Amino acid sequence: MLPSVHVNRQHVTKDMSNDNTTTVAVNGTSHGNSNNSNNSNSIAVSDMKDGELLKEVLELVLKEKLVTGMDTKAKVVQFKQPQELQEVLDLSVCNDESSVQEAKLILRQVLDYSVKTQHPHFYNQLYGGIDEVALTGAWITEALNTNQYTFEVAPVFIMVEHKVISYLLDLFGFTQGDGIFAPGGSISNMYGMVLARYLHQPDIKRKGIFAQKPLVAFTSDQGHYSVSKSAAWLGLGMDNVVAVPSDEQGRMLPKALKEAVEEARNRGHTPFFVNATSGTTVLGTYDPLEELADVCSEEGLWLHVDACWGGSVIVSKKYNSLLKGIERADSLSWNPHKMLGLSLQCSTFLTRHKGLLHECNSARATYLFQQDKYYDASYDTGDKSIQCGRKVDAFKLWFYLKVHGIGQLRSRVDLAFEASRYLAEQVVSKEGFRLVQQPECTNVCFWYIPPSMRGQPETSEWWGRIAKVAPEIKARMVKEGRMMIGYQPLACKNLVNFFRMVTTCTPVPTSTHMDQVLNTIDTLGTDL
Amino acid sequence: MLPSVHVNRQHVTKDMSNDNTTTVAVNGTSHGNSNNSNNSNSIAVSDMKDGELLKEVLELVLKEKLVTGMDTKAKVVQFKQPQELQEVLDLSVCNDESSVQEAKLILRQVLDYSVKTQHPHFYNQLYGGIDEVALTGAWITEALNTNQYTFEVAPVFIMVEHKVISYLLDLFGFTQGDGIFAPGGSISNMYGMVLARYLHQPDIKRKGIFAQKPLVAFTSDQGHYSVSKSAAWLGLGMDNVVAVPSDEQGRMLPKALKEAVEEARNRGHTPFFVNATSGTTVLGTYDPLEELADVCSEEGLWLHVDACWGGSVIVSKKYNSLLKGIERADSLSWNPHKMLGLSLQCSTFLTRHKGLLHECNSARATYLFQQDKYYDASYDTGDKSIQCGRKVDAFKLWFYLKVHGIGQLRSRVDLAFEASRYLAEQVVSKEGFRLVQQPECTNVCFWYIPPSMRGQPETSEWWGRIAKVAPEIKARMVKEGRMMIGYQPLACKNLVNFFRMVTTCTPVPTSTHMDQVLNTIDTLGTDL
Repeated sequence: MLPSVHVNRQHVTKDMSNDNTTTVAVNGTSHGNSNNSNNSNSIAVSDMKDGELLKEVLELVLKEKLVTGMDTKAKVVQFKQPQELQEVLDLSVCNDESSVQEAKLILRQVLDYSVKTQHPHFYNQLYGGIDEVALTGAWITEALNTNQYTFEVAPVFIMVEHKVISYLLDLFGFTQGDGIFAPGGSISNMYGMVLARYLHQPDIKRKGIFAQKPLVAFTSDQGHYSVSKSAAWLGLGMDNVVAVPSDEQGRMLPKALKEAVEEARNRGHTPFFVNATSGTTVLGTYDPLEELADVCSEEGLWLHVDACWGGSVIVSKKYNSLLKGIERADSLSWNPHKMLGLSLQCSTFLTRHKGLLHECNSARATYLFQQDKYYDASYDTGDKSIQCGRKVDAFKLWFYLKVHGIGQLRSRVDLAFEASRYLAEQVVSKEGFRLVQQPECTNVCFWYIPPSMRGQPETSEWWGRIAKVAPEIKARMVKEGRMMIGYQPLACKNLVNFFRMVTTCTPVPTSTHMDQVLNTIDTLGTDL
Repeated sequence: MLPSVHVNRQHVTKDMSNDNTTTVAVNGTSHGNSNNSNNSNSIAVSDMKDGELLKEVLELVLKEKLVTGMDTKAKVVQFKQPQELQEVLDLSVCNDESSVQEAKLILRQVLDYSVKTQHPHFYNQLYGGIDEVALTGAWITEALNTNQYTFEVAPVFIMVEHKVISYLLDLFGFTQGDGIFAPGGSISNMYGMVLARYLHQPDIKRKGIFAQKPLVAFTSDQGHYSVSKSAAWLGLGMDNVVAVPSDEQGRMLPKALKEAVEEARNRGHTPFFVNATSGTTVLGTYDPLEELADVCSEEGLWLHVDACWGGSVIVSKKYNSLLKGIERADSLSWNPHKMLGLSLQCSTFLTRHKGLLHECNSARATYLFQQDKYYDASYDTGDKSIQCGRKVDAFKLWFYLKVHGIGQLRSRVDLAFEASRYLAEQVVSKEGFRLVQQPECTNVCFWYIPPSMRGQPETSEWWGRIAKVAPEIKARMVKEGRMMIGYQPLACKNLVNFFRMVTTCTPVPTSTHMDQVLNTIDTLGTDL
């Protein structure tokens, strides 16, 4: 039965007297269906006080100091194996609702067993931490729950997205263009490949690529795997992504690119797209954009720059020369959610080709993008997108830029870079550590050599043993909950497992933190 | 200069004495760099009290009753044209940081000028409102800021995602399978198309589709545009999506599908994928899944069900026969963020082909999916995805299911459906309204006929005038801020602009609300 009255609290209890779908809507908060106690925690969630669970989240965030600075002595993770975790958490879903107490217990457990990416010693990925201003932006966006496709339903957020895109175009040196917030860097990179393909031959949008000679994309052997995944999805196939050799530091060799393009043409294939990387995933190196832009210009290829990781350096006066030439790219991807401490997802795709996003992606759905609207429908951005419903990711970035100001942001990025330089110096000077190479972005890559292995001939057997050091130390540091640092091999450079330590803006890294990293590794690995 | 001490508050001020990048990190919260007042609001954001902006968001959410029930007398939107909005909001980004007061003003303005999708009279899209429990889940996820790719960085959320997927597989009647949370229904549908293509010919992943005869996909003429957009991106081309005719109510005709498949084969093309829709975007109809599954089975085609909108009915004992046969699909998409009141984005993709997501999408990046980890790496889900970084969308759904319980959810979905049936009855019985057709999902589609046009011959000129009624009434209701309802034409059924009114679970719709809708339209359109 449909209720006739306004239902304040969304309290809909099932009539238990039969198994049918009769429902009763109860107005107000005083009717507990599982409330036999004065303890506010034992009442059902549908009878709880206004905002009680939201208040609980805020309290937990502040108590755990997730936005105000965790102590290094706290655990970065209270590690449990998957099976153990399954035993601790009651993941079952049942017919009845929970009490407030049960709901709060779940929130507590989530915090207890989640990795604290906000911990000063979380260096495991290319992101970490959360900035309070950014989180504020995220929370209000979630609460307003709307959709970034039309001005009609997201007037403020649409205006904000337009503004941020135009600000970023300017920041990266594009004199005109367009852009969009995408759900992560992989899809941002895919936007680049799709636009390049469309510009190469617009009727592909309607006819497909069946009648084409194979289209070939190029990226360095250090490029992110999303380029291959994009090629697979877009129907090009992973084999049609050529891994161009890089120099010893991991920078794509322009001459090798030129040769690879020639080779593809000689095979009867059609080169169309080059992905350069600004801040590679493992080594953190920056491809030489000026020289790659020259090759692309000579060969008539689209230059996309995957600056998802390293793009944040654009705001630094000291380090932004790493991006020299980026203004010559046809498109670029940059993820503010990586270095800057905004919550996932916040990824931007920019192109200097104005109008192309819309031309390439529009489908003109008349139920959404009516042209007889009560406002200028050109503000609607949804038809530029491969998505229909699109989460509002622009607001938290704009709010972050607006509230912190660019000066503050610049200082933070500089500090993240300074920390990596400091750490690299310590690695070089400290016994038992060996730097893979000098850092360009904030990735500091190094091996730890346990005392028992120092001063020995570095045979392949010796390297085979070194390969097992990082995984073992990593396992120990996680099980103790002290620290998290990534490691991996780099097969194309013939490098066995090494640590990849990454510094970001949130929390602010200090020299003490950096010293602690090396000391901890030394302590944990001394018996290996 | 890198700070050596632990920085609690992330306060990094620029040394103003030179234009270089020298930075000073200040410990604690007592050092205001723009604080010359005792008013806590005039101090700089970097000096604010712990959690001050987060508290402000919580207060605004409660004050505006976004989760506890807005009053119908409040405005659903305080409408401003784009240019006007630009004048009210200061969108500029500058070098200096804001004061707490300025930051709070921005939050206040965002609320003032955003559309309140939580308003009882927001019926404009296939989503609306926000459930407090779901919002709690979203807020804690944002605060913990991690990434749904490995157990290593998201232990709780990975276990939760595994659990939810297995729960949903069971709910939809798949005896086995796999699934993933995707950033919205369009990309979920694209997953279906990619998997179908891969199963059809696995070496497409490596070789691409250049050597193929054109691959053809089928959807009804009422299907969502994401099927076409997917075909464009995946290299098939929009022309290789066949729009299969539907019956008068908008249900795909199985016989017409069969014929379209034959025709494609006769053209020398290769049918491989059928998209059925459970809850079409405009009319809300459900395709006959049993009969379509028969055709797909006979023809050897992948059956994907786009249940993004209508899939929520699966929990209803009263209405779930609309999904009869869905367990025979190869894959389906369902967006809990639509009907259930979870914040965007929360979209699920499910397939009954176990292992296929991984096989189709994996790239085996060794920096992320190391096999020498300290836990069973088969829990890592990132390589099943086209994304690399992936937002945690599973937790809020699990928390919602767990805390509310399925009984409550069932009642809510039933109430949303009851409301649409009630409204349809009123439309039929009330003078000046005409129902397009009886609702299947909760879309109620109808025309309003102003008094001046009633009882006249329904010539094409008359319908031409009717076409202008909905846009005009919509403009008036928005400018007054009273209500928001969608409208659109439906060219393939020869229908001019009509209202599409949609009821969802949040807030709970009542018969009074439904009556108000028709009365408001009648009042606003009486002079047309």
